[in-house]
Amino acid sequence: MAVTWPPGILSAGVACGIKRGGVPDLGVIVADDDMAWAGTFTKNAAAAAGVVWSRGLLGKQVRALVVNSGNANACTGAQGAAAVETTAQETARIVGCKPQQVLIASTGPIGIQLPVDLVMEGLPRAVAELSEDPGTFARSILTTDTVSKTSSIRLGNASIVGVAKGAAMLAPSMATMLAYVVTDAAMAAPLLQAGLEEAVARSFDCICVDACESTNDSVFLLATGSAGPVDPDLFAKGLQEVCSDLAEQIVRDAEGATRFLRLRVSGATDDHAARALGRAIAASALWRAAVHGSDPNWGRVLAALGAADRTLDPTTVELRIGQEIVYTHGEPTESLEGARRAMAQGDIVLACDVGDGPGRSEVLTTDLSPDYVNLNAHGTT
Amino acid sequence: MAVTWPPGILSAGVACGIKRGGVPDLGVIVADDDMAWAGTFTKNAAAAAGVVWSRGLLGKQVRALVVNSGNANACTGAQGAAAVETTAQETARIVGCKPQQVLIASTGPIGIQLPVDLVMEGLPRAVAELSEDPGTFARSILTTDTVSKTSSIRLGNASIVGVAKGAAMLAPSMATMLAYVVTDAAMAAPLLQAGLEEAVARSFDCICVDACESTNDSVFLLATGSAGPVDPDLFAKGLQEVCSDLAEQIVRDAEGATRFLRLRVSGATDDHAARALGRAIAASALWRAAVHGSDPNWGRVLAALGAADRTLDPTTVELRIGQEIVYTHGEPTESLEGARRAMAQGDIVLACDVGDGPGRSEVLTTDLSPDYVNLNAHGTT
Repeated sequence: MAVTWPPGILSAGVACGIKRGGVPDLGVIVADDDMAWAGTFTKNAAAAAGVVWSRGLLGKQVRALVVNSGNANACTGAQGAAAVETTAQETARIVGCKPQQVLIASTGPIGIQLPVDLVMEGLPRAVAELSEDPGTFARSILTTDTVSKTSSIRLGNASIVGVAKGAAMLAPSMATMLAYVVTDAAMAAPLLQAGLEEAVARSFDCICVDACESTNDSVFLLATGSAGPVDPDLFAKGLQEVCSDLAEQIVRDAEGATRFLRLRVSGATDDHAARALGRAIAASALWRAAVHGSDPNWGRVLAALGAADRTLDPTTVELRIGQEIVYTHGEPTESLEGARRAMAQGDIVLACDVGDGPGRSEVLTTDLSPDYVNLNAHGTT
Repeated sequence: MAVTWPPGILSAGVACGIKRGGVPDLGVIVADDDMAWAGTFTKNAAAAAGVVWSRGLLGKQVRALVVNSGNANACTGAQGAAAVETTAQETARIVGCKPQQVLIASTGPIGIQLPVDLVMEGLPRAVAELSEDPGTFARSILTTDTVSKTSSIRLGNASIVGVAKGAAMLAPSMATMLAYVVTDAAMAAPLLQAGLEEAVARSFDCICVDACESTNDSVFLLATGSAGPVDPDLFAKGLQEVCSDLAEQIVRDAEGATRFLRLRVSGATDDHAARALGRAIAASALWRAAVHGSDPNWGRVLAALGAADRTLDPTTVELRIGQEIVYTHGEPTESLEGARRAMAQGDIVLACDVGDGPGRSEVLTTDLSPDYVNLNAHGTT
C-alpha cells in the first residue's frame, strides 16, 4: 500500500551508525507549521529520557519529531537527558523552531549511553532527505521487526496516516511500542488527547507478546489542521481503525511468532475485567508454548484465568478453540480433534466466556517459540 | 543421601498406567497411627479436585496420603470429584481408616479425566510394597522433573523429612508444586500450620520459573508425634531449612533450565514489597532469555522493576551482577566484563538495592531456554 503523509508533513530516515550494518536508525518528521498533538506513554517508572522530555511537551504546539532506533536511551541518567536536549536543540536550529517544539523518542536496548555525536551527524542529512513518503522513516524506527507497519484512512478531505514498530517487550501498559499517527484534520488538543487515549485502550493496549513492559512506549498523534474540522465521531472511528490496524501488524510481526492468536473474553463484570483476563492468558508462557506446538492444552488457559481472578467460578466458564467447545459446565468435552485442527492454522481464535456479565475484550498475542528465546538471548551483545 | 521416613511412616510408588512407559505414577504414604497435619494450597480459582478435597480435611487427623502424577485431575468437574472420593474410600478400606483421613493430590496435565480404574488397580499393589525408604514414592510424583528431590534434618530425637516435585508451572502463589514433609515431632496442628505457612513464604513462595500458577500446588506437613515434643523455634528453623532445600532443588531441576539465578532484592519498603519485585524480575521472559545467553542485559531488570513499582525512583537503584555493579546513581557503569563473566557461570547472583527501606527478599529462578518452549509445546499430546 503506497501511503503518503497528509499535506504539510515530510519525513525521512537515515543510517547514522547507532545500529550496525548501515541500516536506517534515525527518523525525522517535520511539519510546515506548528501542530496540535496528543500522546500516550509508558507508565514504567524507569521511563526513557525521550519519554520524559516528550511527556513534558504535552499541551504545547510542536513542529518536529526525532526518533532513533538501536538504543532506548533509558536508565542513562543525566547524560541521557543531555543527549535528548542536544538533539532537540540541533533539530530546532535546522528546522527553525524552538527546542520545546521537538518531540523525541528512542527504541532499542536499555542502559547504554546514546552516541549523540552520531545523531548530530545524521540530523542534517535526514532533514536534507525529507519527503512525503513515510517509507524510510517507517524503516528507521524498526528494531527486530521484519516489516514496516503503516496504516491510513481517508475522512472526507482529511486523512489519518500511522506508522508503528513493535517486535517485543510488548505488554499492555499503555502500548509498549512506538507509533506515529498524523492527521490533517483540525482538532483541538484536548479532543485529540481524549480520542487517542480511547483508541489506544482498544488497540495498542490490547496486545501482549511477552508481558514485558517497555521503558519507551510512546504513541504520538500529530494534527496539522490544514484539512479543516472533521466530525469528531468520524475522526474517533477512523483513529480507532488506524490504531487497531497498526496494533495487529505489530503482533503479527512479533519476535519469533509463528502463530497469531485472537483471545476473545466475554461474560466478565466489565470490559476492564475482560481485558485483564485476556492479558492473563496472553501472559501465560505455558499456554503460548502449547500454541507453538498446535497443542489445544486449554487447561493452561483455565489455570491462567483462575490465577488472575480468585473469585472465578470454573463451572461457569466455556472455552472454545476455533469452532470447538473444549470445556463447558466445569468439565472437558469429548474430543479435541476440531481444536487441534484449528490450532494447526496460522490464525487461531480462543473464545472464553467466563460468566453472564456484559464485559468483553479482544487481546492479540502470538505463540512462544524457541526463536523468541534465541533472539533475546543476545540482545545487547 | 540415603533418607528414611521418621518411625511409623511408610511409603511406596508404583506404575499404574496413568503415565506411558511403565514409570511410577502412583504414590502412597501410610502412617501407623492418626497424625496431625498442616497444608498450604494453590490460591487458583480453578483448583484441582484433590486440592478441594484435601483442603476440606484441614483440622482433622489423617492416616494416609495418595498422589498420582501424569494427570492433574483439575477442571474435571463432578467426574473428577468422584474420582477423588473413590480413591479415598478404597485407600481407607485397605489401610483401615475413614475416607476423611486420606489426603489426595495430583499433578500432570489439566483438563483430562483421571482414569480412576487404573488408580484402583494400583492402590493395593502400592500398599503391599510400603517401606521406610521414600525412594519409589519420590519418583512416583515426578512429572518432567529429571531427579527426585528429598531433604531431611535431625532435631534431637526427632527428624523432618521432605520430598518434593516441581519442574514447571512454577509461580509463587503459595508454592506451585507438590511437597510432602513428615516429622515425628509432637506438635499441635495450629502450631504446625503456622510454622508451615511461615516456612513456605520463605521457600516455595520465593521460587518462580515461568510465572504460571498451578491448579494443584500443595504442601503437606504430617506429624506423627512419636518422638515427643520439640522446641518450637528449633522446629521452625529445621522446617525452614528442609523447605528451602527442596525449593532450591525444584528450581535447579526446572524445565529446560541451564542457569540458576538468585535474585536478591534489598532496600524495599518491607519484605513483602521486596518479594514482589523479586518475582517481577523472575517473571520477565526477556531478562530470563538474556540469562540463557549469558548476556548481562540489566536494562530488562530495571524495566521489570519499573513496571512492578510505578513509584520506583530509578536513581536510587543499584544493580550488581556477581561482584560487578552495572547500574548505580541512575546511570550505567563503564564496563560489563565482570558481569559477563559472572553470567557465563551456572550459578548467578543478581542483587538489586532499590532504596533505603528495610525490606529484603531472595527469589530463585532460572533462565528461559528454547528447551523450555519445546518441552511445553506438546504437553498433552
